Amino acid sequence: MSYYRIGYEEIRGLCRESFLRTGFTREESEIITDVILLSDLYGIESHGVQRMAMYHRGIKSGMMKVENQPEVIFETPVSATIDAKSAMGQLAAHKGMELAIEKAQKSGMGMVVVRNSNHFGIAGYYAKMASDKGLLGLAFTNSGAIMVPTYGRMPMIGSNPIALAMPADPYDFLFDASTTVVTHGKLEVYKKLDKPMPEGWTIDENGEGTVEAAKVIDNIAGRKGGGILPIGGSQETSGGHKGYGYGMMAEIFSSIMSMGLTSNYCLRDGVDGCSHGFLAIDPGIFGDREEIKKHLSAYLEEIRGSEKAEGAERIYTHGEKEAEALKDRMEKGILLNGGTLEEIRDICKELDIDFKLPLKG
Amino acid sequence: MSYYRIGYEEIRGLCRESFLRTGFTREESEIITDVILLSDLYGIESHGVQRMAMYHRGIKSGMMKVENQPEVIFETPVSATIDAKSAMGQLAAHKGMELAIEKAQKSGMGMVVVRNSNHFGIAGYYAKMASDKGLLGLAFTNSGAIMVPTYGRMPMIGSNPIALAMPADPYDFLFDASTTVVTHGKLEVYKKLDKPMPEGWTIDENGEGTVEAAKVIDNIAGRKGGGILPIGGSQETSGGHKGYGYGMMAEIFSSIMSMGLTSNYCLRDGVDGCSHGFLAIDPGIFGDREEIKKHLSAYLEEIRGSEKAEGAERIYTHGEKEAEALKDRMEKGILLNGGTLEEIRDICKELDIDFKLPLKG
Repeated sequence: MSYYRIGYEEIRGLCRESFLRTGFTREESEIITDVILLSDLYGIESHGVQRMAMYHRGIKSGMMKVENQPEVIFETPVSATIDAKSAMGQLAAHKGMELAIEKAQKSGMGMVVVRNSNHFGIAGYYAKMASDKGLLGLAFTNSGAIMVPTYGRMPMIGSNPIALAMPADPYDFLFDASTTVVTHGKLEVYKKLDKPMPEGWTIDENGEGTVEAAKVIDNIAGRKGGGILPIGGSQETSGGHKGYGYGMMAEIFSSIMSMGLTSNYCLRDGVDGCSHGFLAIDPGIFGDREEIKKHLSAYLEEIRGSEKAEGAERIYTHGEKEAEALKDRMEKGILLNGGTLEEIRDICKELDIDFKLPLKG
Repeated sequence: MSYYRIGYEEIRGLCRESFLRTGFTREESEIITDVILLSDLYGIESHGVQRMAMYHRGIKSGMMKVENQPEVIFETPVSATIDAKSAMGQLAAHKGMELAIEKAQKSGMGMVVVRNSNHFGIAGYYAKMASDKGLLGLAFTNSGAIMVPTYGRMPMIGSNPIALAMPADPYDFLFDASTTVVTHGKLEVYKKLDKPMPEGWTIDENGEGTVEAAKVIDNIAGRKGGGILPIGGSQETSGGHKGYGYGMMAEIFSSIMSMGLTSNYCLRDGVDGCSHGFLAIDPGIFGDREEIKKHLSAYLEEIRGSEKAEGAERIYTHGEKEAEALKDRMEKGILLNGGTLEEIRDICKELDIDFKLPLKG
């Protein structure tokens, strides 16, 4: 696949314009674009501009409702429940974490859950909103079911990522990962390449291991059985019940607390309906914020500096790769593959946007 | 190994008496015993009576200080930081979660972190304290370093379990697991049996996979390099960086927030010094408690009822095995192996306790 470098400001203007022309306000268009592009800046291609076509289709089909405003339906000084009313996931989630942060700044902790939402992009974006304010941030979401519980053969749990961000130097700690071994996006990549996947990622309709991406994707879409394994794999020996447990944690912090659709009911009949959860905690409620930040920074430094495995060059701490990718992309532009570029071209044509991207090979 | 069934009340009386005679108050002895025995009731042999000898040694060596009282050194309406002052981990942790629950009952959420503590038993005990009161409970701890970060070869992170409990019918959801593929206790079992371990659990001093339990145990104790892998294994392909991330989450919620020793400094020079974290959240701050409980119960029922993998008989939800084991152990007694029984006999002899356990084969 050929890749192109696109200047950050260029692609940003283009995405923002596409949302403006679809009916979103300027502020809304900024937020959605910002979430999408942070993914590309972090080098997570699957959740970035690559998803523009999916969002565009969802908006046209009415899955995401441009005119609907997420509404707070329950609230306490430390918490809130939001009904997203099928608005864009990014808007509902942004509002959710913003409120959680506000409450944490006043009360020390704030937690907001969101239901009836849509795909919100990378969970890390929202966790980072909290760490940008000096807080510990956690973000959870459920999603259409792709994870098969240990000893099962039907997907009952989503990719259910958990993200955690916490202030540190020289870059914040940022852990953001699905609770499945891999995401659906990884399967799509292997399908496109027509390559067998590594062992231990997925199971087929009989609950047995398979390396055929196309079959698994087809099975998930058709609810024929089989899906992606939780982290730890198919057996308890390798800790599969643990990955399944983390998936449940994300489910409890999103769909259960918000009384939203559990993953096995999401993405049906043209409705996504997923749920999110956001938790912000001020480290200052346990002691001195700066000392705590230094304490974490020193520990991360010690981990990075510890002895490497034979043949390994670096030990990364979470958030380090993202910080490096961001620096690279801001300087040299974000990386888009040819296919995604075609999709952007089509969206621009449809919305009558002048498509004049400076393509740097 | 031969196993014996011991009536719950008998072993309880015995453990309690041993702590009383070591200098703990009646209330303290009850709490420590209760934590230890819940592990056996849940069928988790590694963290139950099997650990009595370890605790007894720790008390005698001064690692656990009988006379010291955990002290709240920082507090807000939603939080507290406790200095355990090397008291028994169970006592410091019990106090921590009790305080978190109290704060959650008043303010909706409560989080307490504890530093300078000792081994606290199973994390699930404390999470369960919250779910017993109708709350969502989370418990974290760090511990002596056994987990090697992805691409490293020195243990830098503990077994770092995360436990989550949430009210549900017919039994509460209870997820409690180390963030390593397996715990150190599992290695000890393989060492005793002199059997090779399954592939993918541990690495040797060069950072390469090994199945020799004795070597890994020796390497960890001697800080020679090598240790236990995070859930997801040694590679990013299989999600090893995710298990490493969950380990870091437990570290942040315990040692970082409390300004305690990070895992790589725990268990040195006769001092444990580990840290814990406890979070209690009242589901009532998001809506109707009973509705939320029903919602989770229905989802768990759907997961258990979903189609099984070829050859699998049951799909478990977290807490189900524990509920079944508890019923069995309360009826028929807890299971102790011969070696543990010998250790108990020795403790009783030393403390001049009459050892008259009715042994049911």
